[in-house]
Amino acid sequence: MKFNCSKESLMGALAIAQKAVSSKTTLPILEGILFSVANNNLLLRSTDLEIGVEVNIPAEVDTEGDIVLSSSIIGELIRKLSGSDVFFESDDHHQIKIECLLSNFTLKGLSADEFPAFPEVIEDHIFSIDATVLKELIKGTLFSVATNENIPVLTGVKIELHEDNINLIALDGYRLALRFGKIKNAVGEDLSVIIPAKSLSEINKVLTNYTGDVIVKFSKNQIFFEMENTQFTSRLLEGDFINYKQIIPVEKTTQVKINRRLLLESSERAALLAREGKNNLIKMDFNQDQLILTSNAEIGNVFEIIPIENIGESLKIAFNSKFLIEALRVIEDEELMIHMTTSVGPGVILPVEGNEFIYLILPVRIAEEN
Amino acid sequence: MKFNCSKESLMGALAIAQKAVSSKTTLPILEGILFSVANNNLLLRSTDLEIGVEVNIPAEVDTEGDIVLSSSIIGELIRKLSGSDVFFESDDHHQIKIECLLSNFTLKGLSADEFPAFPEVIEDHIFSIDATVLKELIKGTLFSVATNENIPVLTGVKIELHEDNINLIALDGYRLALRFGKIKNAVGEDLSVIIPAKSLSEINKVLTNYTGDVIVKFSKNQIFFEMENTQFTSRLLEGDFINYKQIIPVEKTTQVKINRRLLLESSERAALLAREGKNNLIKMDFNQDQLILTSNAEIGNVFEIIPIENIGESLKIAFNSKFLIEALRVIEDEELMIHMTTSVGPGVILPVEGNEFIYLILPVRIAEEN
Repeated sequence: MKFNCSKESLMGALAIAQKAVSSKTTLPILEGILFSVANNNLLLRSTDLEIGVEVNIPAEVDTEGDIVLSSSIIGELIRKLSGSDVFFESDDHHQIKIECLLSNFTLKGLSADEFPAFPEVIEDHIFSIDATVLKELIKGTLFSVATNENIPVLTGVKIELHEDNINLIALDGYRLALRFGKIKNAVGEDLSVIIPAKSLSEINKVLTNYTGDVIVKFSKNQIFFEMENTQFTSRLLEGDFINYKQIIPVEKTTQVKINRRLLLESSERAALLAREGKNNLIKMDFNQDQLILTSNAEIGNVFEIIPIENIGESLKIAFNSKFLIEALRVIEDEELMIHMTTSVGPGVILPVEGNEFIYLILPVRIAEEN
Repeated sequence: MKFNCSKESLMGALAIAQKAVSSKTTLPILEGILFSVANNNLLLRSTDLEIGVEVNIPAEVDTEGDIVLSSSIIGELIRKLSGSDVFFESDDHHQIKIECLLSNFTLKGLSADEFPAFPEVIEDHIFSIDATVLKELIKGTLFSVATNENIPVLTGVKIELHEDNINLIALDGYRLALRFGKIKNAVGEDLSVIIPAKSLSEINKVLTNYTGDVIVKFSKNQIFFEMENTQFTSRLLEGDFINYKQIIPVEKTTQVKINRRLLLESSERAALLAREGKNNLIKMDFNQDQLILTSNAEIGNVFEIIPIENIGESLKIAFNSKFLIEALRVIEDEELMIHMTTSVGPGVILPVEGNEFIYLILPVRIAEEN
């Protein structure tokens, strides 16, 4: 194998490939990144057997070939080079020479023969989605997945596809996050899959600076995200997701319109003391035109007033501040609606107009009703 | 006590006061910040008994008084307020009401009676120094202090004052850092003191955005830094510092002029592999017109060439890459001189012109001289 390529492109490609490298693995080869050159193209591949990445960049190829190099070393080494072009040449013993300006490295690599292949796509189900929309859907739901593994499917986010609609759903037994979006050029029947939270979090990082369309494809138990020169794949979670639709209440006796930022900031201040008291509890007293938000702890207490429009009944209810704050942080609307029934029924957060999201939070039962 | 003040000023003052708050203490009062109001002034004070800070900001004072409030809670709380003015009112039971817009807090405080007093300055020794110069002196030496406490004075930086000269010195048995600067308006005799590294690190943080003059004063075992509305004090270390002047060699048989950035970048690349091999060793072969820098490890090896001007003899020598890199990172000169004698004598890094610094690094003895 003999080739050279731009240091900048390689650095960018390595940063993406490193996202799928196993940090703790018993298979040394998975701590590496596959370098494979042919047809004036350098392909980098990495996988932790759960997710996988392939990145392609242009290269001037003299002799084709492949090798696996330690992800941490090659990544830092390329980053620290001073020149603009990097020259690679490997021998038959998986040893590679790297040259850049007056720097010369020799690194031991591993044979590419053992490196896992990239899973195969089945072209039955394909759609494309605006990267900005996909990022919003992910950000809007990811925080609500279950962190314990009692019910494995709940550690993932469910994706439902129906015609040109895409829904993402995450729930953990105390709260539910539901986001609605649009897809383009959908091919194939309606489908629903569950993606592990960690995979969605990594694809979200890969998407950070990308604003084009993402093409999404599937195989039996994999999902694929394609963008420009990068392919990202993740294993899907098997199992039945909870029938979330029946959890969302249709009744509402208290309907409150409130400024999101005011509610978020008040909740954050109240949470400061609630957190000290280690119970995270904030009490909310919804009157007709104001919400009184209180929290009591050993160290002190908070009393906050927020103006509201309540077109339903007055209600006293208590929530875990963490769940309320996390939902309010991922919403961007200036105002929002909160629908409730009783102090033991869930609070449902909805947009004032449109139907881009539903957030549902179970209340905390409190003994005294003072 | 009853007063109000600007949220912005208070937030800035708290950020400074928090630097001296004890993170782990058996005295609960030291986890707090003293609030003391009088004469339209709010004074904040904190101390961990090693360092102390006093910050003053304007306040509209209705009733004078003082109280101690939990540093972590009051800091975050003020930061999260929405309004621009904060109103405080305490009762006789060390309970304080805090109001800002529609937010009301009640916090339990502690009596100010138990809070340690700020040490008293003796005005015998005073000088002032440009904050930018002071920051350079600190940054240029702090990294070289000893991290183990075998010889307690070496965990501090020695400050020597002689007429309008100030020298900072730090050494740890493997290397020495020496910076020279100028002071202004010096009052008092020549003096030398040793400041704990942690204190210098904190004063450096307090100075981050400050560009005016700093007035430095002393008491028997304290040093004081005064700037604008802030006073910072630290305990001094007792004991005899090592006579560092006799460590700095006067002989030099190899005198090399080299580009700092090239040497730093080459050393960093070589250190990548050296670090993997866990010995941090880089070998340097100084010829007449080039330095060949090499490093070998299990995973691979590096070979770097850097052009130099050597007006002395050729020399092979090896250094711990960490010591070399840390010194090169705090120097800003484009070019520098390295003076050496033999492979077992120290390497001395000096400016090409002027005499702002001396860095000395002991070599690592290596068995084979290949």
